[in-house]
Amino acid sequence: MRHATKLADLGVDGLEAVLAQAIAWKQGPHPRHIPGKILGLVFFNPSLRTRASFEAVAMRGGGSAIVLEVGGGVWKLEDRIGAVMDGDKAEHLKEAVPVLARYVDILAVRTFAGGADDAADFLDPVINGFRQYSTVPVISMESAVEHPCQGLADMMTARETFGSTKKLPVTLTWAPHIKPLPKAVPDSFLLTAAAAGCEVRVAHPKGFELHPQVIAEAESFAKATGGSVSITNNLDEALTGSRVVYTKAWGPATKSGLGPEAVKQFPEWMTSRAHMEKAAKDAIFMHCLPTRRNVEVADGVLDHPNSKVVDEAENRFHVQRSLVDWILKG
Amino acid sequence: MRHATKLADLGVDGLEAVLAQAIAWKQGPHPRHIPGKILGLVFFNPSLRTRASFEAVAMRGGGSAIVLEVGGGVWKLEDRIGAVMDGDKAEHLKEAVPVLARYVDILAVRTFAGGADDAADFLDPVINGFRQYSTVPVISMESAVEHPCQGLADMMTARETFGSTKKLPVTLTWAPHIKPLPKAVPDSFLLTAAAAGCEVRVAHPKGFELHPQVIAEAESFAKATGGSVSITNNLDEALTGSRVVYTKAWGPATKSGLGPEAVKQFPEWMTSRAHMEKAAKDAIFMHCLPTRRNVEVADGVLDHPNSKVVDEAENRFHVQRSLVDWILKG
Amino acid sequence: MRHATKLADLGVDGLEAVLAQAIAWKQGPHPRHIPGKILGLVFFNPSLRTRASFEAVAMRGGGSAIVLEVGGGVWKLEDRIGAVMDGDKAEHLKEAVPVLARYVDILAVRTFAGGADDAADFLDPVINGFRQYSTVPVISMESAVEHPCQGLADMMTARETFGSTKKLPVTLTWAPHIKPLPKAVPDSFLLTAAAAGCEVRVAHPKGFELHPQVIAEAESFAKATGGSVSITNNLDEALTGSRVVYTKAWGPATKSGLGPEAVKQFPEWMTSRAHMEKAAKDAIFMHCLPTRRNVEVADGVLDHPNSKVVDEAENRFHVQRSLVDWILKG
Repeated sequence: MRHATKLADLGVDGLEAVLAQAIAWKQGPHPRHIPGKILGLVFFNPSLRTRASFEAVAMRGGGSAIVLEVGGGVWKLEDRIGAVMDGDKAEHLKEAVPVLARYVDILAVRTFAGGADDAADFLDPVINGFRQYSTVPVISMESAVEHPCQGLADMMTARETFGSTKKLPVTLTWAPHIKPLPKAVPDSFLLTAAAAGCEVRVAHPKGFELHPQVIAEAESFAKATGGSVSITNNLDEALTGSRVVYTKAWGPATKSGLGPEAVKQFPEWMTSRAHMEKAAKDAIFMHCLPTRRNVEVADGVLDHPNSKVVDEAENRFHVQRSLVDWILKG
Repeated sequence: MRHATKLADLGVDGLEAVLAQAIAWKQGPHPRHIPGKILGLVFFNPSLRTRASFEAVAMRGGGSAIVLEVGGGVWKLEDRIGAVMDGDKAEHLKEAVPVLARYVDILAVRTFAGGADDAADFLDPVINGFRQYSTVPVISMESAVEHPCQGLADMMTARETFGSTKKLPVTLTWAPHIKPLPKAVPDSFLLTAAAAGCEVRVAHPKGFELHPQVIAEAESFAKATGGSVSITNNLDEALTGSRVVYTKAWGPATKSGLGPEAVKQFPEWMTSRAHMEKAAKDAIFMHCLPTRRNVEVADGVLDHPNSKVVDEAENRFHVQRSLVDWILKG
Repeated sequence: MRHATKLADLGVDGLEAVLAQAIAWKQGPHPRHIPGKILGLVFFNPSLRTRASFEAVAMRGGGSAIVLEVGGGVWKLEDRIGAVMDGDKAEHLKEAVPVLARYVDILAVRTFAGGADDAADFLDPVINGFRQYSTVPVISMESAVEHPCQGLADMMTARETFGSTKKLPVTLTWAPHIKPLPKAVPDSFLLTAAAAGCEVRVAHPKGFELHPQVIAEAESFAKATGGSVSITNNLDEALTGSRVVYTKAWGPATKSGLGPEAVKQFPEWMTSRAHMEKAAKDAIFMHCLPTRRNVEVADGVLDHPNSKVVDEAENRFHVQRSLVDWILKG
C-alpha cells in the first residue's frame, strides 16, 4: 500500500511519473479513473484551494468526497500515546483513523504545524498517526513538515512554462506577513525543486532558517538529479538570473531568538516589480496562495502577465488526480 | 458567457424562458441535464433552503456540488482594489475567484449587504468581484442588492396558483423583526413581479424606503410588460383586492434617521389573519423564509391553507434547475 | 411511509430483517440500491462516524447526501408550538422540515438531549417534530432518547462474533467522564439487546438510573424474545460470565440529587483489564465511540485483540445501508 505524505514516498521516479501523467491528462478529457471511490478529506485547518481541488478530483474522476472538519463539525482528536484524555480532545486517532478507513478508499489529511517548537513539529504526530493507524492509503494535504501536492503543482507549472526543470535556476524567497506561518510549503518547494533537478536558491533574513533535516534531504535529492541547493541571506544575489521567483512567508526558527513579531520587520523583502527585474527577463512569479497583497507581494507582481499563481493553483487539481492514480496502482 | 446575478441579466425574455421551463420540468421526471458538471457554492452567509436546493439541483441533474463557507472552513476574502491586506482577510477575490473557476463549471455566491450604508451596499462589491474575476458563469444566491432566484420562485408560485401574472394585484408588505435585515428579497420581489406584468403594491412604514434605483428599474420593467408599481405607507389600501400578500422584514433606509431598533416599533405591521381578510378572498400568502413566527407573521397565517410558503421554497429548486440550464445554453 | 427514529418503529421483525440483510450485504459487493436518491443529513450536534458512515451509505448506494449543520452553516431551529420567535432561533421546524422534505428522499437527524431534565428530554421534541412535519421518511442519527442505528450495529457485531444473540449474557456498564453525556446510547443498547433476545445486565452507580419508560419497554421486548433485563449497582456481579462488556458514560438522573460533577466521582468504574477478566474468557469489548482513553476505558482494553470497537463502527455503515433499504420498501 502506498502513502503520499512526503516527497520521499514518491522518490524521484514517483515524482516523474506523477508529473508526466498530470501533464498528459491536462491536455485531454477528464478520465473517469476512480468510479465509485470515496476520498475522505479530513481538515484540522481551514482550506480553499485544497478542499475544492480535492473534491473536484473525486467528482471529475467519477467518485465522491466526504469532508470532515476537525474542531468544526467534528470534535478535536488526540494523538499522544497513553494520554489521560480529560482535556478538550474527545477521541484518539487510534480509534478515529481506523474507523474512517472502513468507510472510504483514501484518507487525505490537512494538519498545520503548532509553530511553537520546530523540533516537535518535525515529528509531525498527526499525519504520522494517520499513516500508522490507517488501513487505506493516506495523502497529505499539508502537514507540519511538507505539502507534497503543492510541490508537485509548482514543478508542473515550471515544466509547462520552460519545458524542462533540469538545472533551472529557481529562487525561493521569504516574505513578511502579519503572523508566523508554517514551513511546510517552503520545505516542499525546496525538496521538490531539488528532486526535479533545479538549481535551487533559498533566500531569507537571518533567523528564518528552514528545518536542517529538510535541507539535507534536498541536497541529497539534488545530488541524485544533477540539481543544486544554496542558502543565502542576500536576496539580490539569489534573484540574479533566476527563471522562477517563488515567494512565501514563514516564521522564525525556534532557536533563532526572534519572536513572532519578527515576521513584520523586513518589509523590504516584500516581493515587488523591482525584485522581479533582478531576475531573468522571462522569469515567472509563483506563490502557493493565499497571499496577502501588499504585505507579502505587491499588486504589480500578482497582476503582471508573468504571474503564474492561478495556473499553479489549477495544477493542484491535475497533480492530485495523477497522485491518486499513482497511489491506487501501488 | 451568461451570468445571473441580477434580473437584468435575464431580462423579460430570460425570465419567461426560465419560468416556462421550470413549470414544465416540475411535471415530469428529473432531467439529468448537467451530467458530470460541478457547481461551486460559495457562502459568505448562512443558508438552509438555498444550500439544500442548489445541492439538489446539482445532484438531481447528474452533477455534483462543492460547498465552501467563507469565514467557516474558508478564511475571509478581500474585495477592495489596492488594499494592504494586513487585517482579517487572508486572500483577495482577485486570486480566489479565478482559482475556483478552474475547478468548477459554475460559481454560485451568497453575500449579504453590510447594512450600514445603502449606497455602499448598492455597489455590491463581492458579487461584482466574482463576475469580474470569474472565467465561468456566476449565479447569485442572494447578494446585497438582489436575490434573483427567490424572485423567480415567487413568480413561479403565483403563476402556478393563478395561471397568469398579467395585471395580477400583488402586495409586498414590510414586517417587524428583531434586527434590520437586507433588502435583497424585497428588491427582487418588486423587480420580478414588475417584469412578470403584475400590479405591484409596496407598503412599508415611513423610513423603510427601498433603493430608489431598484424602484426606477421596476417601473421600467412594468412599462415594458403592462404592469405597474405603486409605493405607499398605507397598508390597508395596499392590501385591498390583492391576490398575493408577500411579507418581508427589512431595515430602515440609511438616510431615514431611524436606528436599528426601528424594526421593532411597528408591531401592527406583523401580518395576521386580519390583514389577509382585507385582501382578495382567494389571496395567497407568500414569504421567502426563514420567518420568525409571531414576530413577522402570525401562526394563523402560516398555518392557513392559503399559505404557499412551502411550495414557494420547493420552487426554488425548479427555477434554479431551469436557470442553470439557461446559463449553460448561453 | 416508514420512519426509523426509535426501535419500536422496526419492532422485532424489522430488527431481524435489517440485521439479516446487513450481514448478507457485508459479504458481497456494494449493491447500488439507491441510485439517484438524496439523503438529507441534518446535524444539531457534531459527528464523525455518523456523518461519514451515512455519507458513505448514500455514495456507495449510488445516491448522494446533503449535509446541513444547524447552528453552524444553518441558523438555529425552533420547535415550540405557538412560540413568539424573538430569541436566537430564526426558523421553525414547521417551515424547515417540510421544505427540506421537498428537496430530498430521506431526512436523517441528529439531536442530543438537553440534559437538564430527563422528563423534558424524553419528549424528544426535535426528532418528533421532524416526524410530524416531514413528508419523507425520517431516520434518527441519535436523538434525546434513542440511537437506533448504534443499537443495530451493536447487535450485528455481537452476532458476527457469537453467531446468535439468543440468551447471550451482555453487560452494559456505566463509566466516568469529564461531563454528563446523554442516555440515548445506553437506552438503545438496552432496548436492542433485549429485542435481540440477550440476557441484558445494566450496571451503574446509584443515581445514574436510565429512563424508567425505556427499562419497561426493554422488559417488554425481552418477554417477547426470550431475553431478560436486570439492573444492578454491583458491577462485579454484572460482569461475571458476560460475553459482551459494553461501556458507556452517561449523566445522573434528574431526580437523583447528584450534580454534573458526579460523573467524575467513580473512577473505579473505568473499564480496565481487571474488569474484563471478570467476564467470560471469550468476552468482547464494545463501545459506540468516541471514547476518552484512560477516563472511560483503559488503553489495555481498547488495544486488546478482543476489542471490537472498530468493527462495531464499521457495522454502522452496514446496518444503516440495510435500514435505508427497509425504509424505502415501506
